[in-house]
Amino acid sequence: MSEAVQTLDGWYCLHDFRTIDWSSWKMLSENERQAAIEEFEAILNKWAFVEEEQKGSHAFYSIVGQKADLMVMVLRPTMDELSEVETELNKTTFAEYLIPSYSYVSVVELSSYLAKGDGSDPYENPYVRARLYPTLPKTPYVCFYPMDKRRSGNDNWYMLPMEERRDLMKSHGLIGRSYAGKVKQIITGSVGFDDYEWGVTLFADDVLQFKKLVYEMRFDEVSARYGEFGSFFVGNLLDNERLEKLLHVK
Amino acid sequence: MSEAVQTLDGWYCLHDFRTIDWSSWKMLSENERQAAIEEFEAILNKWAFVEEEQKGSHAFYSIVGQKADLMVMVLRPTMDELSEVETELNKTTFAEYLIPSYSYVSVVELSSYLAKGDGSDPYENPYVRARLYPTLPKTPYVCFYPMDKRRSGNDNWYMLPMEERRDLMKSHGLIGRSYAGKVKQIITGSVGFDDYEWGVTLFADDVLQFKKLVYEMRFDEVSARYGEFGSFFVGNLLDNERLEKLLHVK
Amino acid sequence: MSEAVQTLDGWYCLHDFRTIDWSSWKMLSENERQAAIEEFEAILNKWAFVEEEQKGSHAFYSIVGQKADLMVMVLRPTMDELSEVETELNKTTFAEYLIPSYSYVSVVELSSYLAKGDGSDPYENPYVRARLYPTLPKTPYVCFYPMDKRRSGNDNWYMLPMEERRDLMKSHGLIGRSYAGKVKQIITGSVGFDDYEWGVTLFADDVLQFKKLVYEMRFDEVSARYGEFGSFFVGNLLDNERLEKLLHVK
Amino acid sequence: MSEAVQTLDGWYCLHDFRTIDWSSWKMLSENERQAAIEEFEAILNKWAFVEEEQKGSHAFYSIVGQKADLMVMVLRPTMDELSEVETELNKTTFAEYLIPSYSYVSVVELSSYLAKGDGSDPYENPYVRARLYPTLPKTPYVCFYPMDKRRSGNDNWYMLPMEERRDLMKSHGLIGRSYAGKVKQIITGSVGFDDYEWGVTLFADDVLQFKKLVYEMRFDEVSARYGEFGSFFVGNLLDNERLEKLLHVK
Amino acid sequence: MSEAVQTLDGWYCLHDFRTIDWSSWKMLSENERQAAIEEFEAILNKWAFVEEEQKGSHAFYSIVGQKADLMVMVLRPTMDELSEVETELNKTTFAEYLIPSYSYVSVVELSSYLAKGDGSDPYENPYVRARLYPTLPKTPYVCFYPMDKRRSGNDNWYMLPMEERRDLMKSHGLIGRSYAGKVKQIITGSVGFDDYEWGVTLFADDVLQFKKLVYEMRFDEVSARYGEFGSFFVGNLLDNERLEKLLHVK
Repeated sequence: MSEAVQTLDGWYCLHDFRTIDWSSWKMLSENERQAAIEEFEAILNKWAFVEEEQKGSHAFYSIVGQKADLMVMVLRPTMDELSEVETELNKTTFAEYLIPSYSYVSVVELSSYLAKGDGSDPYENPYVRARLYPTLPKTPYVCFYPMDKRRSGNDNWYMLPMEERRDLMKSHGLIGRSYAGKVKQIITGSVGFDDYEWGVTLFADDVLQFKKLVYEMRFDEVSARYGEFGSFFVGNLLDNERLEKLLHVK
Repeated sequence: MSEAVQTLDGWYCLHDFRTIDWSSWKMLSENERQAAIEEFEAILNKWAFVEEEQKGSHAFYSIVGQKADLMVMVLRPTMDELSEVETELNKTTFAEYLIPSYSYVSVVELSSYLAKGDGSDPYENPYVRARLYPTLPKTPYVCFYPMDKRRSGNDNWYMLPMEERRDLMKSHGLIGRSYAGKVKQIITGSVGFDDYEWGVTLFADDVLQFKKLVYEMRFDEVSARYGEFGSFFVGNLLDNERLEKLLHVK
Repeated sequence: MSEAVQTLDGWYCLHDFRTIDWSSWKMLSENERQAAIEEFEAILNKWAFVEEEQKGSHAFYSIVGQKADLMVMVLRPTMDELSEVETELNKTTFAEYLIPSYSYVSVVELSSYLAKGDGSDPYENPYVRARLYPTLPKTPYVCFYPMDKRRSGNDNWYMLPMEERRDLMKSHGLIGRSYAGKVKQIITGSVGFDDYEWGVTLFADDVLQFKKLVYEMRFDEVSARYGEFGSFFVGNLLDNERLEKLLHVK
Repeated sequence: MSEAVQTLDGWYCLHDFRTIDWSSWKMLSENERQAAIEEFEAILNKWAFVEEEQKGSHAFYSIVGQKADLMVMVLRPTMDELSEVETELNKTTFAEYLIPSYSYVSVVELSSYLAKGDGSDPYENPYVRARLYPTLPKTPYVCFYPMDKRRSGNDNWYMLPMEERRDLMKSHGLIGRSYAGKVKQIITGSVGFDDYEWGVTLFADDVLQFKKLVYEMRFDEVSARYGEFGSFFVGNLLDNERLEKLLHVK
Repeated sequence: MSEAVQTLDGWYCLHDFRTIDWSSWKMLSENERQAAIEEFEAILNKWAFVEEEQKGSHAFYSIVGQKADLMVMVLRPTMDELSEVETELNKTTFAEYLIPSYSYVSVVELSSYLAKGDGSDPYENPYVRARLYPTLPKTPYVCFYPMDKRRSGNDNWYMLPMEERRDLMKSHGLIGRSYAGKVKQIITGSVGFDDYEWGVTLFADDVLQFKKLVYEMRFDEVSARYGEFGSFFVGNLLDNERLEKLLHVK
């Protein structure tokens, strides 16, 4: 058996994608729509307060294309709170006009391939804590995709010796680091929680950087030989003003 | 032909996943909702009585993410009783507000890879009986996934000699045992009953242990080379109080 | 080109799986439900008469889990009659409360791998006729799954010489024969008729024998290297009494 | 790069599969149903006239099993006319009671693997023209399936030298020819038009010949190593009388 | 790690496929339908103005077969504008009678495999600009499909050295160039944006050229060994007159 890599695990994470049922939404009266929006914005405000208190974080984006119209990404200290957030969302009036289209359950993860432990408790390290319990960026663009490491014939990541995986991840990490300041990346682990092994959420001011980063990485052996990718979602930031504009119908 | 491993088989098992149709549920009156909940809780009570009588067992969890909202896992001595439980559930008023999302049919299974038979009837062994006819734990968290052993090119579990499979399972079992006290695992066999070969149900007080266990096992050759996994579901325990809170709408 | 095996082909076969739409079914009045059941039972009676006349056969089971609630398996001398049976079923009132969930079109098949022809017309052989035009057992349990022989890289059944396929099938058949008296197996061929190459329908008094048989076979090279399996369905026998009990709602 | 084979291309082809929504169909009055049938039969008559004029052809079959209830196969000289036929069908009253279940877009194709060109324009050759612009048989049975030539590891059809492909196709063609008089085969090419590379439509007086032909071919290297198959559909001929019988409800 | 190829990226691109809900559309009054068409045509006119101003481009086609009835392809300078176009479409009355069936998010892409850079900024090169910010052709026919470069066993495009990829692309490009004047090809990159790596949109006056081009390319090593293809869509040009004819019902 290959040596398993150790992980540090932070806040639990739900990506929740929904599609707007425009025909039904348009059948509401202006007042009903406004009430539904206000109820939903009250929840967003509550979440903003949780974020201020550093007891969680969230991001809210519209998604381009037919896979979904909206994505809520929520971080919370426990799986129970994550479930409560999901249920709270499900019970809103707004949710009656949203069709669930995809979701992903995971936990913020740091792997120790590249870490040099100094013997102290990493969970007390402020730099580590900032990454395990992050306040999500509010960049104009987001990208999400789930992924696996391949286990197929001669391309079996999990059969590689630790040393080889570490070297591969090092070179892979260098690409990521070359995008520092352009793309912020949140890795969440989902082994045992959802159908892929990781979720990758990217944040950027320039949407093209998602393509550049993911494409460059694809030529790296970690992705080229060992990456298996799920669906890709790309979206634009939603604040209250943009949300109201999005949901406004004549 | 490789020697087939013998199995001991206990209670039949149904995992039944459903999604709440919130829009319809909210259209009921408070009284109608209460009546539906009470009818459903009466069934849960009946099942609790069966469990007390040691004539079966069950577990009831809410599921995180859009794959499902609820999971009922039921154990019964016969496939007929399993079918009756499913039908009873289908006929409830509550079921009119639930959308079937996934199910899994299997039977509690112990394989003899690691057993040292002493010639006596294992079905009379109290330790074996406790595992074949278990009372399911009521831990705060559950994890379920179906899986196959791979039969692909050079990675064909079923072409390996018995001796090699036994050695591999031994090392695999050691990982499981190192989680004793943290994760309780129920293996159910489903060859001939459902689309994968096994169902794995994990119970834990700390949801993170699911990820740690499944991830560590993935580096073990049994999973790394021979494991094929279906969907993963993770959930929180539901008792009557939590169920009523979940189903309460304004 | 490898030598193709010859087949003997008997009655055409339709497996028709349906899910009960409980919410709609419950909205009918007691009288309406009774009328629908009676109309459906009249068809079952008609089929029973066909079976007595040895002009076909059928089996009727409830299915466990969410894949389906009911399975009708019908054998008829021509594809036209099969189609008529399906249409007759579709036109019933009962069918308005059933959601089609899966079906399989095939023909009862005997392959000549193991047969020792003596030059006489096998279609006149009473033993062969009994297998090509069988009266389906009414055992308490049924199991159905479709399957292919693999054509992948070095595991390509159809590239094997006839001699090797015959030897493999012989050993495979021995397992089947060791379940004589426990499991009755009907093989139907579906090349050119449906998405897999064969349908396998198993009948047993003890549902656990399905698992034991299919699992033991999986270690045999024919399944281990060359078997590709579709969905598995397992069910309980339905007679009029059980059907009425199943469909009874308060 | 391997030498590409040249093709001759004839009429464009749409296979259109639909499922009857029996519950809705039965809710119509007898008169409404009759009107819908007559409107649809008027279209069939129009198509029959096009066929007589040799400006196209069509076939109309009922399909066995739940994949579809009806299949219309239409040939026309241009993709525009194909689209018009589809739209005309979509606008009928009958179509309101049909659920689209599958379709396939292609063009009648002759490949030149086996042709011995004599320098003259093949499009002027009457034998070739009869095959490119065929009047579809009205045999009692039809079989349709789409297929690809495999491009996987060592089994990559498109990497084979022309000479080898020609030899393989020659042997493959011999099987087809041995069914002359029993099965009529129309090959339509769909590269660039639909998800597989070819559609295969078989016509026969004896439905069992579909199984015999496809199974025998499966042992031939072209299918065994290089064939990838989509869904198989099998059906019975519909004329006006059978259509009216099919659609008649009490 | 293999050297990643550089790309030039132009306008963002949305392919939006929808199916007409004929039953609902027919339930509208003639006036309501006319109003819906006019509202939609007003949007088309607005887009035509954007195109004239060279601030974007679009194409509008009907699709043959059941995968979709309509395809809108829209190019815009930013992902935000793309999202706005999609939302604007979703809010129309016409959209209430359209069922989303597929979409694709990408960006016009030129890869530098074949480019000979002269040191100057390619984004200032008029020839390059014309390709990055193209006015889409209004040819009678369109073909769309998404694709990946394979990463499987020995057929792993992303593990090839740059030199080898360049040679392969060169030969591949020669086929494309031999169709100059017959097929116009727009390549859009979608790594990080959607589920495949590229979208390919082909425009032609003769629909058969799509099949000829794609089939010929399939024998080229780039496609034969390294191409993985998604669904293929083929369609006919829609102008206002054809749209009104398509949508006209009695």
